[in-house]
Parts: sequence; C-alpha cells; structure tokens
Amino acid sequence: MGRIPQHPEVSDFDVQRVLEALVDPVRRSIVTQLDALGADIKCGGFDLPVGKATATHHFGVLRDAGVIRQYYVGTLRMNSLRRADMDQAFPGLLDAILAAQKQPA
Amino acid sequence: MGRIPQHPEVSDFDVQRVLEALVDPVRRSIVTQLDALGADIKCGGFDLPVGKATATHHFGVLRDAGVIRQYYVGTLRMNSLRRADMDQAFPGLLDAILAAQKQPA
Repeated sequence: MGRIPQHPEVSDFDVQRVLEALVDPVRRSIVTQLDALGADIKCGGFDLPVGKATATHHFGVLRDAGVIRQYYVGTLRMNSLRRADMDQAFPGLLDAILAAQKQPA
Repeated sequence: MGRIPQHPEVSDFDVQRVLEALVDPVRRSIVTQLDALGADIKCGGFDLPVGKATATHHFGVLRDAGVIRQYYVGTLRMNSLRRADMDQAFPGLLDAILAAQKQPA
C-alpha cells in the first residue's frame, strides 16, 4: 500500500484547480459528506455511486487541489476536510458551494 | 441576427450548471470584467484570448446557467451580470469566486 503523496501548501492553492476539483458532483459529494459528519472518514466509509478505483481517483483530485487531507490510521486511509486552509486561501468559497449543494434551486 | 434565447428563472438555477459555467477561465474572465467595470459590456467589448465564435459560445454557457443576462441595444448585444439573482440562488458563491480570482494564491 502506498503512502500518502504530498499535499499542497495553502500558498500553492490554485483557484482553477480547486474549481476543477469541485465541479465534479461525486467529489462535491465527498466534501458534503465530510462537512455533514463533521469528522474524518475513511475512504471506504463514503456513500458514493462509483467503484473503489474511481473513488480513489476522486480523492486524489481533491487532495491535490488542497480540499482534503489524507492520512493513515494503521491500514485505513482517512480523509479530512481542509476547511481552515480552504477558508484562508479562498474565503467563503467552500461554505458557498456547500450551501449551494443543499439548496433545492 | 438572432434574438436572445430564454434566460433561466432563479428557481431553475442549478449548482452543477453554474459551477460548470464558472470552472472555465475564459468565462470567469468575462464575469470578472463585468464585476470590475460595474456596468454592462457589449460582446465585442471584452478583453478575451479567444475568437468571436468561441466567445459567443462562452457567453451562451454563462447565460444558460443564469450568470449573465443578454439584451440588445440596437444591434449591440449587451451582457449584464445577474448578481442579485446569483446571490439569491447561491448566497456568497459569486463573491467568493470573484474574490478567489483576485488572490495570488
């Protein structure tokens, strides 16, 4: 099992990369589930409409954009929302997208 | 010259469509220029790195998502940022993206 690749520093966050990460509905679902639970979730613990390999790809895109942080607990790969880092880089963006996600409109 | 197609009502705004519209850097540039000027701009009045046909496509995507409104003044097709409608549908989203666009990070 590979170890976790590098995560970007906040100073390296890029709006284009973040929006490309969040435009995908499966990736927004991952973020929404992390936000709703308010706790870290292991990769296998999400309710997602895709297989494991595809989910792994989506986690990687979110991680490379800086939206989530991944770390191991034993053999479990955990996912954490980088809310403070996102808020620092792009104030209001994550909250606005999470809120939009909840709206019927 | 064709007349302007229908614009979506606020109640029909869709977060997926809006994010797909705003993930494109040329389309975000259109929105940024409208915001910076604080006034409506004719289609030929933007500083864009694409040709006229491509620009017309981008205007259409933004219009269909509800981000801009288009109307004619004589033979000029004008573009207006639907800021109030966007704020009503997705509070904070447009401002957060515009602010993110200005950040060096």
